[in-house]
Amino acid sequence: MRDAGEFGLIDRINADGVYGAGVIVGPGDDTAVVAAPDGSVAVTCDVLVEGVHFRRDWSTPIDVGRKSAAASLADIAAMGARPTAIIVGLGIPGDLPAAWAVACAAGMREEAASVGASLVGGDVVEAPQVVISVTALGDLEGRAPVLRSGARPGDVVALAGRLGWSAGGLALLSRGFRSPKALVDAHRCPQPDYAAGVRAASAGATAMIDVSDGLVADAQHIADASGVDLQIDTAAWQVPEPMAAAAAAYNVDPREWMLTGGEDHALLATFPAGTELPEGFVATGVVAHPSTPACVLVDGKARPGNGGHRHFG
Amino acid sequence: MRDAGEFGLIDRINADGVYGAGVIVGPGDDTAVVAAPDGSVAVTCDVLVEGVHFRRDWSTPIDVGRKSAAASLADIAAMGARPTAIIVGLGIPGDLPAAWAVACAAGMREEAASVGASLVGGDVVEAPQVVISVTALGDLEGRAPVLRSGARPGDVVALAGRLGWSAGGLALLSRGFRSPKALVDAHRCPQPDYAAGVRAASAGATAMIDVSDGLVADAQHIADASGVDLQIDTAAWQVPEPMAAAAAAYNVDPREWMLTGGEDHALLATFPAGTELPEGFVATGVVAHPSTPACVLVDGKARPGNGGHRHFG
Repeated sequence: MRDAGEFGLIDRINADGVYGAGVIVGPGDDTAVVAAPDGSVAVTCDVLVEGVHFRRDWSTPIDVGRKSAAASLADIAAMGARPTAIIVGLGIPGDLPAAWAVACAAGMREEAASVGASLVGGDVVEAPQVVISVTALGDLEGRAPVLRSGARPGDVVALAGRLGWSAGGLALLSRGFRSPKALVDAHRCPQPDYAAGVRAASAGATAMIDVSDGLVADAQHIADASGVDLQIDTAAWQVPEPMAAAAAAYNVDPREWMLTGGEDHALLATFPAGTELPEGFVATGVVAHPSTPACVLVDGKARPGNGGHRHFG
Repeated sequence: MRDAGEFGLIDRINADGVYGAGVIVGPGDDTAVVAAPDGSVAVTCDVLVEGVHFRRDWSTPIDVGRKSAAASLADIAAMGARPTAIIVGLGIPGDLPAAWAVACAAGMREEAASVGASLVGGDVVEAPQVVISVTALGDLEGRAPVLRSGARPGDVVALAGRLGWSAGGLALLSRGFRSPKALVDAHRCPQPDYAAGVRAASAGATAMIDVSDGLVADAQHIADASGVDLQIDTAAWQVPEPMAAAAAAYNVDPREWMLTGGEDHALLATFPAGTELPEGFVATGVVAHPSTPACVLVDGKARPGNGGHRHFG
């Protein structure tokens, strides 16, 4: 980094820039300007820190960039919005090769481009370890945002996307393994079904959340905001093959990874009973009148604590 | 922090929240939703790192929060936009008192509120030192953005706001002094004239930039983007009294602070000749046909290098 310098790095990052039609002013001025045809903009921010959310010896810079962008893009999807742009605050050590930062930005750009969004700018500063703060913007396209507070007793609880893959991959990496590769790769870089968010909103989802901290923990946010219980039924769950193999090797219950593991960015949504679930969603429970306090029940049992990742825990 | 926990801290930060009419969905869901009546949104991000941009033993958490928000809000102003919202990615050490983070967020909220904008959300994670990434959104209210690239030979160069105050304050603090207080306070927390940005846009400014890295460095950005020279004339400059006193005590030329010091967030703009300059702007030079390469001349002399702050320098 000390050879490339701040502006040299920014030039290298922007050299690969391709911008969608919604980018009115791209990088290089005091701000970017992004179209907001809905007349409003959904905005969210997630921060990833080296050693907490990723390790440079476990993940490529492309992976880290994609994962960082995914965390924010999935939040946009969980409101039923279409991501339009991301902007990044990047802290990097002075002795980091500039190529790492350039590749990380390329990963962010790729992940954004996969949903039609553009990396439109950011700031790069020196920091003792890599810190990546990605803000994402989204367009609701005239739809009402799907909040956490709209779930009603009788609604169906449904999931789109993976559970427990990242947690399984982390368990493997933590023990020095690099396979099963599908599981390890899932920790390095999630594969959210972003488009499921718009489909859910269009189908009339009453509440939705990005499962970033763990299914039970994030279901609890819907329970709290909506004042309802969420009853999750795992009887029909299939444990994916690579996860079953890894869990058996470590003698752990893979359902715990699926219930408490974060970072796969599945979408958890509720729909009025009788709704034809949109593509990608699978019913996995029902919304019920609240206990005191409102809680998440898994196979009929309340979960003491909710198992999700918390900082400063 | 380890006592308060991530969600406890976020609850405390949001407990004081007051939101402007443009906040459609505030903190607490997957994203905020902010009005963008112009049909587009100006967006920018600045990162401040403890030990680089501020020190906790020099500044209160309120100061740090205000300064962090100011860096991004000033960029919005420099496009001729009205700030609407900020969102923050906050990395903080686990042993930091939660009250520090709560006060820092209160400082951000205060600074945003001073221009009618709201703190609408963010993310808090554990990091080895305080890292603050503030993204600001702004509304162009139907105006074209004022870019860096529009300056034309013959335009007047004008400034709104302070130069060199933060640099003077930093020089004092670095030598262990806490006075003159006005100068030290200027380093702790800038006082940008945000509204001057909209006034400049309305008056027909052809180019504008937030002076965050230093006047000469940022003037060079306009020179490069517009393909012109900027001729800065300092003959009429008054050195403010506290700066003159401090500079004399250290035997430095206060004009160097004014030419190269950043973080006061003055606005540097160019206007067609004959424009009645908007309130707050003072003419300080002219735009000229470019040298090769385009450059900034101070009192007729090109500045070798441009003196501004660069990371990884």
